[in-house]
Amino acid sequence: MGTIRLRRFIQDMTRLVEAGGAEACLSQGASLLRQLVATADWLPPAFAEAGPRYRQYLLHCDPFERFSLVSFVWGKGQRTPIHDHGVWGLVGQLRGAEVSTEYRLGPAGTPPRPGRRDSLRPGEVATVSQATYDIHTVENAAPEVSISIHCYGGNIGAIRRRSFDPETGAAQAFVSGYANDTLPNIWAGSPAA
Amino acid sequence: MGTIRLRRFIQDMTRLVEAGGAEACLSQGASLLRQLVATADWLPPAFAEAGPRYRQYLLHCDPFERFSLVSFVWGKGQRTPIHDHGVWGLVGQLRGAEVSTEYRLGPAGTPPRPGRRDSLRPGEVATVSQATYDIHTVENAAPEVSISIHCYGGNIGAIRRRSFDPETGAAQAFVSGYANDTLPNIWAGSPAA
Ligand SMILES: [Fe+3]
Ligand SMILES: [Fe+3]
Ligand SMILES: [Mg+2]
Repeated sequence: MGTIRLRRFIQDMTRLVEAGGAEACLSQGASLLRQLVATADWLPPAFAEAGPRYRQYLLHCDPFERFSLVSFVWGKGQRTPIHDHGVWGLVGQLRGAEVSTEYRLGPAGTPPRPGRRDSLRPGEVATVSQATYDIHTVENAAPEVSISIHCYGGNIGAIRRRSFDPETGAAQAFVSGYANDTLPNIWAGSPAA
Repeated sequence: MGTIRLRRFIQDMTRLVEAGGAEACLSQGASLLRQLVATADWLPPAFAEAGPRYRQYLLHCDPFERFSLVSFVWGKGQRTPIHDHGVWGLVGQLRGAEVSTEYRLGPAGTPPRPGRRDSLRPGEVATVSQATYDIHTVENAAPEVSISIHCYGGNIGAIRRRSFDPETGAAQAFVSGYANDTLPNIWAGSPAA
């Protein structure tokens, strides 16, 4: 059952990126992601394990890197640095709760200033993009493990991005990578598997 | 290194199935598969383990099931029943040695008769299709574990196929499924992964 849900999302999202256009991917992708995070039972436990830092498990990447789907797992109190993406992104809350806080860069040497805050409860979806905001922090707002499912308009683990010093706003390049060497086999639900 | 090799095959094969045509997939796919099995170091050990029966590990399935890539792992003496595919297929030998023997169905109640035999050494590629032959057995022809990499024009683990009784030729439906719940993460080779 679970793998079929994930499979449908991947198929529908592949059709969206083939049709092209970041706006359509964001608006129609948000509907798809809302359906995906409407239940939490489909994520295999191997992609839901918390660690000493928040973890990013790749669930699927389009063969041409037009989109990727990632399970973010946050232990209690864990949060990201201030960072950007450079591609559109969708965040769907699966379990727990998270807060995304926008940051705006000021003059060189000054702290980035917080902007919009998005609080996410299970089943809710938020977006990042050049059209809304691209620089933020995300933090676990629940007293236990939180899990969100992210979909990005690229292979997010391989994209050269920037994090920003909270005191000076100074940018530093980073590539996040992924925590996992294996992906869910969404085609495993056949007899004799 | 290894995951990049696999990634390239998947990208190139996706372009081939998008262009369409079983003949192009077979002829150009054979070249791609020959490159893939030219070295054997890229297959992660989790997809190279033999079991009490031969195993079929899915490595990748196209989101629209236009092709699948499978690692077949054969213990000493293991062989398939006589079976068909219903889609084009490419078999590339990675380690060890295998023999594919064509079978032709006779009148009802009579044994299928063996036809063409393909002996495969590491680096070699054979094909199955309606244009050559679609019914065969495959057996491990080496005194140790053999591994071949198969690419099919569909999601082979989910296709309803037929096996044939060696005495009577009677057909029985089967769906092979896959041995694995996780796939290789071909995008894992990023920093901080
Ligand atoms: Fe982010
Ligand atoms: Fe076969
Ligand atoms: Mg030969």
